[in-house]
Amino acid sequence: MKKLTLFASAFLLSLGSYAQQALWGGTNLVSPQINEDKTVTFRIHAPKASKVEIEGDFLPPTKVDTPFGPQDIPSRAPFKEGKNGVWEYTSSVLPSELYSYSLYVNDLKMPDPNNVYQNRDIATMTNIFLIGGGQADNYMVQEVPHGTVAKVWYSSPGLGMEARRMTVYTPAGYESSKKKYPVLYLLHGAGGDENAWTELGRAAQILDNLIAQGKAEPMIVVMPNGNGAQEAAPGEAPNSMVKPSFMNPKTMDGAIEKAFPDVMKYIEKNYRVYTDKNHRAIAGLSMGGFHSLYISAYYPNKFGYVGLFSAATSKQVNKGVTSDVYENLEDKLAVQFKNAPKLYWIGIGKTDFLYKDNMDFRKILDNNGYKYTYMETDGGHIWKNWRIYLTEFVPLLFK
Amino acid sequence: MKKLTLFASAFLLSLGSYAQQALWGGTNLVSPQINEDKTVTFRIHAPKASKVEIEGDFLPPTKVDTPFGPQDIPSRAPFKEGKNGVWEYTSSVLPSELYSYSLYVNDLKMPDPNNVYQNRDIATMTNIFLIGGGQADNYMVQEVPHGTVAKVWYSSPGLGMEARRMTVYTPAGYESSKKKYPVLYLLHGAGGDENAWTELGRAAQILDNLIAQGKAEPMIVVMPNGNGAQEAAPGEAPNSMVKPSFMNPKTMDGAIEKAFPDVMKYIEKNYRVYTDKNHRAIAGLSMGGFHSLYISAYYPNKFGYVGLFSAATSKQVNKGVTSDVYENLEDKLAVQFKNAPKLYWIGIGKTDFLYKDNMDFRKILDNNGYKYTYMETDGGHIWKNWRIYLTEFVPLLFK
Repeated sequence: MKKLTLFASAFLLSLGSYAQQALWGGTNLVSPQINEDKTVTFRIHAPKASKVEIEGDFLPPTKVDTPFGPQDIPSRAPFKEGKNGVWEYTSSVLPSELYSYSLYVNDLKMPDPNNVYQNRDIATMTNIFLIGGGQADNYMVQEVPHGTVAKVWYSSPGLGMEARRMTVYTPAGYESSKKKYPVLYLLHGAGGDENAWTELGRAAQILDNLIAQGKAEPMIVVMPNGNGAQEAAPGEAPNSMVKPSFMNPKTMDGAIEKAFPDVMKYIEKNYRVYTDKNHRAIAGLSMGGFHSLYISAYYPNKFGYVGLFSAATSKQVNKGVTSDVYENLEDKLAVQFKNAPKLYWIGIGKTDFLYKDNMDFRKILDNNGYKYTYMETDGGHIWKNWRIYLTEFVPLLFK
Repeated sequence: MKKLTLFASAFLLSLGSYAQQALWGGTNLVSPQINEDKTVTFRIHAPKASKVEIEGDFLPPTKVDTPFGPQDIPSRAPFKEGKNGVWEYTSSVLPSELYSYSLYVNDLKMPDPNNVYQNRDIATMTNIFLIGGGQADNYMVQEVPHGTVAKVWYSSPGLGMEARRMTVYTPAGYESSKKKYPVLYLLHGAGGDENAWTELGRAAQILDNLIAQGKAEPMIVVMPNGNGAQEAAPGEAPNSMVKPSFMNPKTMDGAIEKAFPDVMKYIEKNYRVYTDKNHRAIAGLSMGGFHSLYISAYYPNKFGYVGLFSAATSKQVNKGVTSDVYENLEDKLAVQFKNAPKLYWIGIGKTDFLYKDNMDFRKILDNNGYKYTYMETDGGHIWKNWRIYLTEFVPLLFK
């Protein structure tokens, strides 16, 4: 080990016992280690454990039958104990993707202590890693110009709230240019918030990379919070440091959709953006797809581009709710498609529990001769698909 | 339990087994639970464990003797096993603070699986919680106007890098106003990065709250990355998803200090800011205090306000380095204090390993009759002190 300066030694001491151990001791392991052949080795120092397993979305999933059709759930693989209490597991060769995993030590779930890279999905933390050389190159930070990601607060009279938080991506060059930009409004799903698309969805990396490659137009991406009773993501609003939930109030009662112009008003006042339909897109995943569908139908001449990613499409999902936002959808679509969007885009996974819902919605579009672009992928209701859909959708915008 | 809609049920299924268990099953515990009397109860579902402990900075620390004087290291307290495999621990009554903790299950360190709120300090993840009713009210998100926090990229010819990332806080009202603002440059310590002050340091909350109370002037706070070889925080630059280190190259070799005008140039070009000395402050913790000292001495007429928080002050800390940034400090201070900063502020903890270093530096100031403000606190080289120092320092600026 290299000799430390006096400052470094003293500084280390000040970190307390664990940090020193982490930096120097038995737990100073590399995990995950992405090997040259694109297998991945995971390690943990757990000398007292009798069983260590890994659960990850790179393992062949377990198929389970549910009332909503077959669903994939993650399965586990065993670590082997080696020397000095270090357990190890090496995966098979993995295709390029962003992967998630957790460890189980004596059946207790925990993160990989040597991997500080985690995503929060609602109340679940999982470690992540990326394998390059393919699809995930879009999700990785590359040597390209980077956009700015800002957490801004806007006022929403429509929701009766003075301050709501959203994430705004402005592309590289925005600050130094004087030109106007088009805007994509990008909405999260149930249990998500204004952080979901930049964290789980890698939206900033996807936009940086597609723009740098000339595949996408430079655009502003606005990621608001779609939970109508929330000011901001858990921990970012007063008294909100509680366990995040996927059941938030005021998400599918018409309020978010009706109040959407508050979001647009803030953006159009504070950013250099075009304000016409053909420079405005809206897309979302799951509940955010539901919002995108009903917002673009309720405000039929506002969005030239609409993207429904694994969207809940039927108002069956919020049975019992009465709102004019959801009434007479077919009449609204007739108005919307009279002056049709340049792009109406639908993406869904073959095993998604909303697959049939999407088929029913497509029938409405087909029966009326409304044009749309359709993409079907493997897999279910998962972030892997939403990152793919964003990567496919964004290059089609504002052309 | 309330009856779930069809959508909610299907959605839950799609989350996979763990998430469902987390939301519904045995691990759906509240932890930490801040009780009315300001004790805190921690819980974990660990039916197979034979020992569960907590390590936290709210426990009486263990004193250890080191070559650098006595240092506090965290100690642990035992959980008790209750029904159904749920272990529990309740703290004593805690004063208002931001606290950090980790769990140990059969001696293996892990986070509290029911608490998604974590801070990363170099390569160590710890759970956090806040107790209000005192000092930590400054650190909590309150019902006040919030500033914008942006991650922006600037170019640094001085470091030979096209893109480096920094965090910029603009106060509430910045977007809608036309006036100019003063700027505080706020620097992190060794092992930190451009995220440290907003995450561990709660800088956005501190600024929001002090400004809303009328205690601080509205100001822009710029938090650059002080590791000269780094484009951005680990994970935010190409090929950087590795275990973060506290030993980064090019941190104390003069390069960061010399290239500092690159940071200022970007800010002064892209934000509505005053560009005179009396509207410009610089402060930092530990290595960032060292940077603040030497930047403000090397560019002696640029900063009207200087803050050294637990600063490394002596160039002993980077022995062997030759840079004109560090030569003839007393001569440089003579120039700097000829047209003295409005405020030269020093804060240090009584048990900090840099206490003596700071005493030596104060002697230089005292011997020359250079005025400064001095604050001494309990404790050592810890974020608790740096949050306190920021809270004390910011109200003194730009008055």
